[in-house]
Amino acid sequence: MSELHSRIRRKSLHAKIKKVDEVIPMFKDGMNLGWSGFTPAGYPKAVPIALADHVEKNQLQGKLRFNLFIGASVGVETEDRWASLDMIDRRWPYQTGKNIQAGINTGRIRMGDRHLSMFAQDLGYGFYTKENGGSLDIAIIECSAITEDGGLVLTASCGAVPEIVQIADKIIIEINTGIPSFEGLHDIIEPISPPNRPPYLISRVDDRAGSPYVRVDTDKIVAIIESNHPDNGRAFSEQDSTSEAIANNILEFFKFEVKEGRLPKNLLPLQSGVGSIANAVIGGLANGPFSGLKVWTEVLQDTMLDFIDSGKLDFASTVSLSFSVDGFKRFYEKFDHYKDKVIMRPLSIANHPEPIRRLGCIAMNTPVEFDIYAHANSTLVGGTRMINGIGGSGDFLRNAYLSIMHTPAARPTKTDPTGITCVVPHVPHVDHTEHDLDVLVTDQGLADLRGLDPKTRAQLIIDKCAHPDYKPILQEYFDMAKKDCLARKAGHEPQLLDRVFKMQVNLAKNGTMKIDNWDI
Amino acid sequence: MSELHSRIRRKSLHAKIKKVDEVIPMFKDGMNLGWSGFTPAGYPKAVPIALADHVEKNQLQGKLRFNLFIGASVGVETEDRWASLDMIDRRWPYQTGKNIQAGINTGRIRMGDRHLSMFAQDLGYGFYTKENGGSLDIAIIECSAITEDGGLVLTASCGAVPEIVQIADKIIIEINTGIPSFEGLHDIIEPISPPNRPPYLISRVDDRAGSPYVRVDTDKIVAIIESNHPDNGRAFSEQDSTSEAIANNILEFFKFEVKEGRLPKNLLPLQSGVGSIANAVIGGLANGPFSGLKVWTEVLQDTMLDFIDSGKLDFASTVSLSFSVDGFKRFYEKFDHYKDKVIMRPLSIANHPEPIRRLGCIAMNTPVEFDIYAHANSTLVGGTRMINGIGGSGDFLRNAYLSIMHTPAARPTKTDPTGITCVVPHVPHVDHTEHDLDVLVTDQGLADLRGLDPKTRAQLIIDKCAHPDYKPILQEYFDMAKKDCLARKAGHEPQLLDRVFKMQVNLAKNGTMKIDNWDI
Repeated sequence: MSELHSRIRRKSLHAKIKKVDEVIPMFKDGMNLGWSGFTPAGYPKAVPIALADHVEKNQLQGKLRFNLFIGASVGVETEDRWASLDMIDRRWPYQTGKNIQAGINTGRIRMGDRHLSMFAQDLGYGFYTKENGGSLDIAIIECSAITEDGGLVLTASCGAVPEIVQIADKIIIEINTGIPSFEGLHDIIEPISPPNRPPYLISRVDDRAGSPYVRVDTDKIVAIIESNHPDNGRAFSEQDSTSEAIANNILEFFKFEVKEGRLPKNLLPLQSGVGSIANAVIGGLANGPFSGLKVWTEVLQDTMLDFIDSGKLDFASTVSLSFSVDGFKRFYEKFDHYKDKVIMRPLSIANHPEPIRRLGCIAMNTPVEFDIYAHANSTLVGGTRMINGIGGSGDFLRNAYLSIMHTPAARPTKTDPTGITCVVPHVPHVDHTEHDLDVLVTDQGLADLRGLDPKTRAQLIIDKCAHPDYKPILQEYFDMAKKDCLARKAGHEPQLLDRVFKMQVNLAKNGTMKIDNWDI
Repeated sequence: MSELHSRIRRKSLHAKIKKVDEVIPMFKDGMNLGWSGFTPAGYPKAVPIALADHVEKNQLQGKLRFNLFIGASVGVETEDRWASLDMIDRRWPYQTGKNIQAGINTGRIRMGDRHLSMFAQDLGYGFYTKENGGSLDIAIIECSAITEDGGLVLTASCGAVPEIVQIADKIIIEINTGIPSFEGLHDIIEPISPPNRPPYLISRVDDRAGSPYVRVDTDKIVAIIESNHPDNGRAFSEQDSTSEAIANNILEFFKFEVKEGRLPKNLLPLQSGVGSIANAVIGGLANGPFSGLKVWTEVLQDTMLDFIDSGKLDFASTVSLSFSVDGFKRFYEKFDHYKDKVIMRPLSIANHPEPIRRLGCIAMNTPVEFDIYAHANSTLVGGTRMINGIGGSGDFLRNAYLSIMHTPAARPTKTDPTGITCVVPHVPHVDHTEHDLDVLVTDQGLADLRGLDPKTRAQLIIDKCAHPDYKPILQEYFDMAKKDCLARKAGHEPQLLDRVFKMQVNLAKNGTMKIDNWDI
């Protein structure tokens, strides 16, 4: 028996094994598609690549366009190549890749940007495909195996698969025989619509509350394809001195909070985003004074393997394993060692406010910028240009025990090494409000905002977080705004609307946010 | 035995009965105080009024100032009078009253504005009183009775009492003998800090998951005062044709959603704010085609009694009973009839994302204004002047099955009957983001935004929601912004930062948002 046949333990499904070319005709222009996948891991590859080849070969650019609903981003060889071939009409709720971003920002691709936990639910409720009766035409799901009773064993992510298979009319399975089976690593709670929903019985990071398999109506499976494409692993983000300075500020803060009795000695379950700052924080914890730590997050990167090996991390719950090629090699080599330390959950559970609040997570994420009153912009550069999407940052920051955002104080432009300040008077797009954030951190310092009113917050953020090049500019604005608004008896949170975005306008015109003065 | 003595069923506490004058010396300048109370109901009156009298009589204005932590607003005879006597330094997380608002907006009172569910938790964690070891100096709690084993029976609201009594060093109880005992109406879950927290076992609006009493360390009770002050009931907001038009748009939407199968016939648990629009919606439901309805909300107003009497409303869960004087009269007269239809919960439960998401609430709230991309401003007029606070609107709108905001399309200024448009290019302060809101409604129409990208949303909001006087102005802006941003390949959500607040600046200068042109 072939590896493929042995992975499909429900024998009656062997009849549905097809070659990838055979499924191409199922796809019609305008269809709503749901894929497995989350932050390049566990996404289907064989079918999307074959469809792209088909479009390229037959010059169908712009004539075979789809609406894509996927947990989060997937490998550039799939969605970004699709974007370059004009195969995407709508894309929900997150993406990465130069071509797809260009498509979105020039108006060719319509993107919906939604909290990941709400995306999964609302997709399941049929809200995004109302014109189609709330269903998806085809789901494409990467699996490790199919069990005797037809349960799907997923691969390196859970994404929004439980919702997608519920509302899909047809399901295509890609069995990835090129990687080991991930059986036993997932915990899947079947989505139920309100009003008859039970609590999620998760009180510890390592609690199981569901099944290791995704339940599915096997009659909907129209094809099973063999795949051996590996995930297009995320490149490792190197740490730098700025990231290390930020991480150090956070670790000092944790030590202080433990000393003051506001955090237990082993902290609380950690959520950490991706990128160099997150790597520096995790690296710092792996070498730090805390042990018995736990992680409740969306994405595990390579540094998490070091963290486990350090003996400091007890357990991690995640939506996906987003390792580099080398990271996956390392994971597979010591699979039995790592698999007892990790559980994967769908984003409707991992990002759900219910467990995040109950467990008391510590959320840490990087914005584009934040402002002196602690509103943060995570999605739109200059308030208009989409990068990736809000992802799960809002799910975690709104509900965490401690909500922390970290960013370099300044970033370079082509002409000015500190041409962009990440601390501004007013962010031009708000993803996280002042009502949500507790702590802001840059390489310059850390501002603990708990219990502070807006004006006290503003002074502290300028003092602790702003880059020295921008402190006088921000202070002048704040002083002017205070004077004007308090005199008008409208000064709870002073702003000058006639010039509030002057620094951003200057950046677009002159390549730096350093303005000469605040005159209109 | 006096009524007071019979209400204090734990006999050993009779020794702690005091006259209100005896507790005045306990209060020192700079103390952190926690009160019961929520949206003028269930707040302490005897002690706060006596303290105000003391300050007035002894000319202690500005010399006896307190930090006030209270579930939400309380009667103007307490906090607003305190504000007029300069007795408030800090006030968390919500307030009402002209004097307190003047104090906040002129910088004399420091206000913190936080989601109510987070306020309760963070107060309990000690985050707001870090400088004081995380505790409150004195709690003042209005009660109906004290049970044999020292449990507190609250009155017309639960507010943040469970957290307040946990962290308070001393507790003063006001037993209100002027109103019937509310025993049996409350469901109190004792606050536990993470990481060892269980799920809240609430799967239906009428589920009980706690105790009818607030557990308290009776050794901390330093005084019990008799009170017979009634709650300073909220005046009834009259409906008008604008509110009725809005309510009608919402009811038609509900009918359509039921027809399409996206809502059950008896809808889902309703959360409705306060004011004339909320009254019109509830009034419409009381006379409408739906029955077997349920309410999961923060505040019950008088119209809710009509709703119950109509036979259409099965059950309501709330934080407080915010009736008018006449409404309370009606409630007390048929107490046994109403009490089986109502449960009161602390805001840490009523506003918690966990039950709100699980039950699938329909959230409806009024903002100051919203913008063409569906960000809403609920707190700061002109982006700087505080009205009341975000309250629970964010708790509900972020987590609801359907998140609806409703407002008149335009409001009058002194010189122009439609001088203010509530649909703007960019709200000057964001409390709710585009990631959170599903449906926007004005008297002009309803925009269902589910599944739409930002530019499609913008066109729909202009078409459906904007007042005719402002449609051409908004359309011109949107067209200009699209042209500019798409050309710059930065057009996911087009804005022109150099003139985005021109309408607001014009309002401040000329008393209307009708601008002549969009030139800079």
